[in-house]
Amino acid sequence: MGDRIFNFSAGPGVLPEEVLRQVQQDVWTIGGSGIGILEHSHRGKVVDRIFEECEADCRAIGSIPANYRILFLTGGASQQNWQIPMNFLPAGRTGDYLITGFWAQKTYEGAAKLASFPGKPFGTAHLAASSKDKNHSYIPSAAQTTYSDRPAYVHFCGNNTIVGTEYHAEPEVPEGVPLIGDLSSHLFSRPLDVSKYAMIYAGAQKNVGPAGTTLVILRDDMVERGSKDLPELMQYRSFVPELSRPNTPPVFAVYVMGLVFKWIIGQGGLAAIGKKNLEKVKPIYDVLDSSGFYRGHARPDSRSLMNITFRLPTEALEEAFIKEAKAHGMDGLKGHRSVGGVRASTYNAFPAQGCTALAQFMKDFEKKNG
Amino acid sequence: MGDRIFNFSAGPGVLPEEVLRQVQQDVWTIGGSGIGILEHSHRGKVVDRIFEECEADCRAIGSIPANYRILFLTGGASQQNWQIPMNFLPAGRTGDYLITGFWAQKTYEGAAKLASFPGKPFGTAHLAASSKDKNHSYIPSAAQTTYSDRPAYVHFCGNNTIVGTEYHAEPEVPEGVPLIGDLSSHLFSRPLDVSKYAMIYAGAQKNVGPAGTTLVILRDDMVERGSKDLPELMQYRSFVPELSRPNTPPVFAVYVMGLVFKWIIGQGGLAAIGKKNLEKVKPIYDVLDSSGFYRGHARPDSRSLMNITFRLPTEALEEAFIKEAKAHGMDGLKGHRSVGGVRASTYNAFPAQGCTALAQFMKDFEKKNG
Repeated sequence: MGDRIFNFSAGPGVLPEEVLRQVQQDVWTIGGSGIGILEHSHRGKVVDRIFEECEADCRAIGSIPANYRILFLTGGASQQNWQIPMNFLPAGRTGDYLITGFWAQKTYEGAAKLASFPGKPFGTAHLAASSKDKNHSYIPSAAQTTYSDRPAYVHFCGNNTIVGTEYHAEPEVPEGVPLIGDLSSHLFSRPLDVSKYAMIYAGAQKNVGPAGTTLVILRDDMVERGSKDLPELMQYRSFVPELSRPNTPPVFAVYVMGLVFKWIIGQGGLAAIGKKNLEKVKPIYDVLDSSGFYRGHARPDSRSLMNITFRLPTEALEEAFIKEAKAHGMDGLKGHRSVGGVRASTYNAFPAQGCTALAQFMKDFEKKNG
Repeated sequence: MGDRIFNFSAGPGVLPEEVLRQVQQDVWTIGGSGIGILEHSHRGKVVDRIFEECEADCRAIGSIPANYRILFLTGGASQQNWQIPMNFLPAGRTGDYLITGFWAQKTYEGAAKLASFPGKPFGTAHLAASSKDKNHSYIPSAAQTTYSDRPAYVHFCGNNTIVGTEYHAEPEVPEGVPLIGDLSSHLFSRPLDVSKYAMIYAGAQKNVGPAGTTLVILRDDMVERGSKDLPELMQYRSFVPELSRPNTPPVFAVYVMGLVFKWIIGQGGLAAIGKKNLEKVKPIYDVLDSSGFYRGHARPDSRSLMNITFRLPTEALEEAFIKEAKAHGMDGLKGHRSVGGVRASTYNAFPAQGCTALAQFMKDFEKKNG
């Protein structure tokens, strides 16, 4: 650790220290070029190679089939709230949304808002399932889901950072309907079958990089299906040639994402990462399960490996917990206001020692205050 | 210099070395927080302060009046090609465009393309002036400009990187018509009267930072005027509260831009920077003016201080020039294919020694090959 502390931030999240060391070097001059990574032309050979390797490493990590494009966009995952329906939801069609938390709700609202777009060129959003009745503490089952007739697509959010729930398998969708997943906060945290998706997207700042780029994995038929009447840079197809460089891309964010991909490969890929993540959070969930002091927010069958949410008996104790934890070198533990309490985010790059340290701190705090 | 070379790249461009040194430190841990700049929550105190200082320093540098908002967006300057007309050009109105180069042309085409947007909710783009007849080697005069009747706005591109021309004063516009300037490649390279503009925007990667954020300076009445029917993140007003953080912003790009602003202030502000830039390029333009060997592309009265474009007698000599220059530690000199020849970009952070080195190299090369 040295001069660094345990960073439980929900995102932007912690990055591997090897990656940071490499950045420190490459910011001054990269690959002996005499020019730092921030100052290279996005059309030059150095950046060509970075983008090519980033794409290839991403494909290798996710075993992404050849009929999927890998794109590096901007505007955060939030931009996808409108870019998806604008491209794939023409007037007369319906897009189905599964609401499992704050971000899934925002995504649904983004699509629903398009009903008031000038000229009314877009379709409608259908709420196919919601866990709002229990403050999104669970993942709705198939029986709790009602799809519309022949939806243009089904959209879900794989991991819900605020409430700490996670889909442990993709939702079932009607035969032939494209499944679109916002995997912003758990992409590449475990093995993944990309072929189940028509589209995956993820803001990079949780598991795969810094804020500033959005990774999009899009099946070829979806690239084709997208509207051709939209402005060039709203169309996914514009980002297919030249590896996402129809204009100046967020070079640095893609570069760091590329370094994170190399780190993931070095860790042994998704099988190894998934195993490690499962083991990593066990000490914390074990404390929750054996304690009458802490109450987990998520229903046990819906728990996230990336964000662990829990309450203490009183808000005063929660405040004291967060303050004392910070004094013990553990930061970013304050829960989102909609859930309250404590949230520990344990993304890929978060070290296992940080989890055992938190589990021990929880036990000690309970002993003193329980 | 040490292990760094002279980087004449047209963009992303060179950054001040003090800025790079600071980045190297802050990537590991910033301000003693124990967390690197890439890993801090965009809602935490460290990032709050970075965004507040970035905004305040920008306002101070540009003497930006209180009735203008300063926004940090994404999608590059190119996103503004559609975001501006979507917000400010409703059906039935006309937006006027001055075409002085490749990017101004793209901006015009972006607006014109909206005529085919589903539902036809947007107005039309009018070509008010163009320098295409002479491969954009000059800035059109007022007499060469024909505005439409009561345009919704007039759009121009202040500096044209590819051809190496620059407006030395803002174009005259009809009384009361909002002037919108794409100042991507010369913002803060000289004193500026923001009050002449309704809106200024700039991709950061030339004079004010790295690729990954777009600086927008927008007058309050324009914020109000923008359409309310668009998706939330297409509306400028969504970025006004919380200093451009309706969603996760490109934290790192804004942070580096903030460091560049502090560097500009340290240099003495825009008056000092403008004087330095004027003196800096003189040796190169002097060689062009005294030589029968080199031919400048831009008409002398339209010359840019940021991008110097010239040809040599043959393409073979141009190739040899660029190759030899590189061997002398000068990179990024290849001209854009639409102009050919050589382009030397000399943004704010480009050192004066690099300009005298290039001027000397030009003389030596002419002596050997002229």
